[in-house]
Amino acid sequence: MALLVYKFGGTSVGSAERIKAVADKVKKAQDSGNQLVVVLSAMSGETNRLIALAKQMQSQPTEREMDVLISTGEQVTVALLAMALHDLGCEAISYTGAQVKILTDSSFTKARIRKIDDAKLRKDLDAGKVVVVAGFQGVDELGNITTLGRGGSDTTAVAIAAALKADECHIYTDVDGVYTTDPRVEPKARRLDHITFEEMLEMASLGSKVLQIRSVEFAGKYNVALRVLSSFKEGNGTLITYEDTQMESALISGIAFNRDEAKLTITGVPDLPGIAYKILGPIAEANIEVDMIVQNIADDATTDFTFTVDRKDYQRALAILEQTCADLGARKVTGDNTIVKVSIVGVGMRSHAGIASTMFKTLAEEGINIRMIATSEIKISVVVDEKYLELAVRALHAAFELDKISA
Amino acid sequence: MALLVYKFGGTSVGSAERIKAVADKVKKAQDSGNQLVVVLSAMSGETNRLIALAKQMQSQPTEREMDVLISTGEQVTVALLAMALHDLGCEAISYTGAQVKILTDSSFTKARIRKIDDAKLRKDLDAGKVVVVAGFQGVDELGNITTLGRGGSDTTAVAIAAALKADECHIYTDVDGVYTTDPRVEPKARRLDHITFEEMLEMASLGSKVLQIRSVEFAGKYNVALRVLSSFKEGNGTLITYEDTQMESALISGIAFNRDEAKLTITGVPDLPGIAYKILGPIAEANIEVDMIVQNIADDATTDFTFTVDRKDYQRALAILEQTCADLGARKVTGDNTIVKVSIVGVGMRSHAGIASTMFKTLAEEGINIRMIATSEIKISVVVDEKYLELAVRALHAAFELDKISA
Repeated sequence: MALLVYKFGGTSVGSAERIKAVADKVKKAQDSGNQLVVVLSAMSGETNRLIALAKQMQSQPTEREMDVLISTGEQVTVALLAMALHDLGCEAISYTGAQVKILTDSSFTKARIRKIDDAKLRKDLDAGKVVVVAGFQGVDELGNITTLGRGGSDTTAVAIAAALKADECHIYTDVDGVYTTDPRVEPKARRLDHITFEEMLEMASLGSKVLQIRSVEFAGKYNVALRVLSSFKEGNGTLITYEDTQMESALISGIAFNRDEAKLTITGVPDLPGIAYKILGPIAEANIEVDMIVQNIADDATTDFTFTVDRKDYQRALAILEQTCADLGARKVTGDNTIVKVSIVGVGMRSHAGIASTMFKTLAEEGINIRMIATSEIKISVVVDEKYLELAVRALHAAFELDKISA
Repeated sequence: MALLVYKFGGTSVGSAERIKAVADKVKKAQDSGNQLVVVLSAMSGETNRLIALAKQMQSQPTEREMDVLISTGEQVTVALLAMALHDLGCEAISYTGAQVKILTDSSFTKARIRKIDDAKLRKDLDAGKVVVVAGFQGVDELGNITTLGRGGSDTTAVAIAAALKADECHIYTDVDGVYTTDPRVEPKARRLDHITFEEMLEMASLGSKVLQIRSVEFAGKYNVALRVLSSFKEGNGTLITYEDTQMESALISGIAFNRDEAKLTITGVPDLPGIAYKILGPIAEANIEVDMIVQNIADDATTDFTFTVDRKDYQRALAILEQTCADLGARKVTGDNTIVKVSIVGVGMRSHAGIASTMFKTLAEEGINIRMIATSEIKISVVVDEKYLELAVRALHAAFELDKISA
């Protein structure tokens, strides 16, 4: 008998029929002798419907009230799933985040979980009930409803799995696992049976949007075994754990990419201490997130500084940087919003030399010019012109033999 | 400065525009120096949408889960109104029933309020905030979400007004007050400036569906001054209080009627002790509500027994009564589902004789045959053929001079 936490996203509970299909799946798992907690998102489209209503009230809706509003989405689905389970003769009970209770801080719309009261959950599980919990929401110390921000249902599931020391946390989505890269770009992309948390974090943050990154961090931190599976197809999905369970790990696990990047460069900046802060401070103040950062010291006591931002923030970042350029007496600002980032990810990099050079050689052979490079322990990212994205991904997929099952 | 509780029903908050109109009204009342608690229903149609979803899950949805589900309707509107108020620069905060907290028993879908914690409300009011509370819902001692049953938002408003000792509780609806009778039947019907709780109770229970009956009972019990007004039209509406404030009260205040009645008669029942229970017991067990009951003792040691039920329960009641007839050895069962009930209501009846005879004379003059009569202290009800409904109402309205303003 295993204790499992299942999480179903908005598409998986997007209609009455799909909620019933989820009930069937849950019932089957319980009949096989497992204890189950099921975490649900709102029905797909519901959160957007509620946000649209809010915007009709106030152009910048109050965050506390926003949380009162959108937390209703999950409350609806948990009640419906409990009913569907009852209809199958399966004992089940639904809880909101406040009822569990999932205690968070008071950062409305982006709260962080502080503590989960597992007593009530355990009592229901021991009584043979399936416990259905509203994802994405919690309650602060004053009793205000909070939400964890978009995609936060994954985080709820992982946090509950951690609190209950569950055997596995299953994240059901519309994909059947984590792939070596996006199959729409490289049809030879292969589902991975297993990936480590670190690799998953790099894959997720780099644009393979299978799991919400915070939930993976959380799972890693509390050593919760995560499994990504399809709600609609049978299969074992991809297991994400802390250790690499394979005897001989592959050199790299996957190729991630991000089309939403834009690059900005300021050249001829007087090279003084604190210059990075002077350049990036105003960008951060404008709430623009910076991704890659590269600084080159030129030989004339000035420096060139390049960074990437989300493409939607490109024009704002450009305007801010022009001002900074004038303030600092730098030479000029250039930018490019037709670039993409391509990254190879793998824990195998740690123990194998020559991976970077294989990557650069592969791209060179295809005539792809590299505009920026950034590396970490288990990933190498390059920025290239967006027209080369598919070519780069496919060439690297072949070069690292990702279409072949590793030992 | 007055402390007022405002309640807006589903039609009044049925769209973004209407919620904004409610915000305007509330802001204006606050600007005039009043303290305000606003209780809201779900947007019109929302509760039915949720119930339809539930029925797709389970033909008889679990009541606990039903409450988790439909309580989301009011949670949405309170958040939206708080946002709309913020947009007008008005400090406001929303609460669910559980947050207030409105403690109820655990009778899901028809819970009764036990206690309201007024401390939080007072604190917010004293801080100059408009407090927006989800109607229709509460929480039981175990933290389960409960609902008060359909129309329960009125009850929430009255209960909060009682807990806070509010000066008045305003129920905003789509009618501009309580009328002497239904204006669709008698165009000369007149809005009453004032009516007593007792009269209102008789009017409501007899089919003038302005206010939910439980909320009127509640208001009477705790002596909360209720005012029924239109959300859409200006005006003072109808004030409902315990005392009759008029120096000389009208003989009768209004004429109520109910088209949804059906009549059943069992004749030749052996007249033994407990016979009423033997006849009505099986009806009650089938969850059929009985309205009027008349029993005549015939001279042959048998009795005739007549009662009315809601027309939708007529066929079921008839089948049950046939069985009872066979069991008791009674003569036969007859029924009629083309009858209506017409009632005159007024506290003036207590001190004035001859009202019943005026009623019967008026109906006789119009050639309307009376099938059943039932009386209470402040009301007289008759059952007549449904084809006479309009005629009976108009004749009685004229006979009691309800179109004229009384002293």
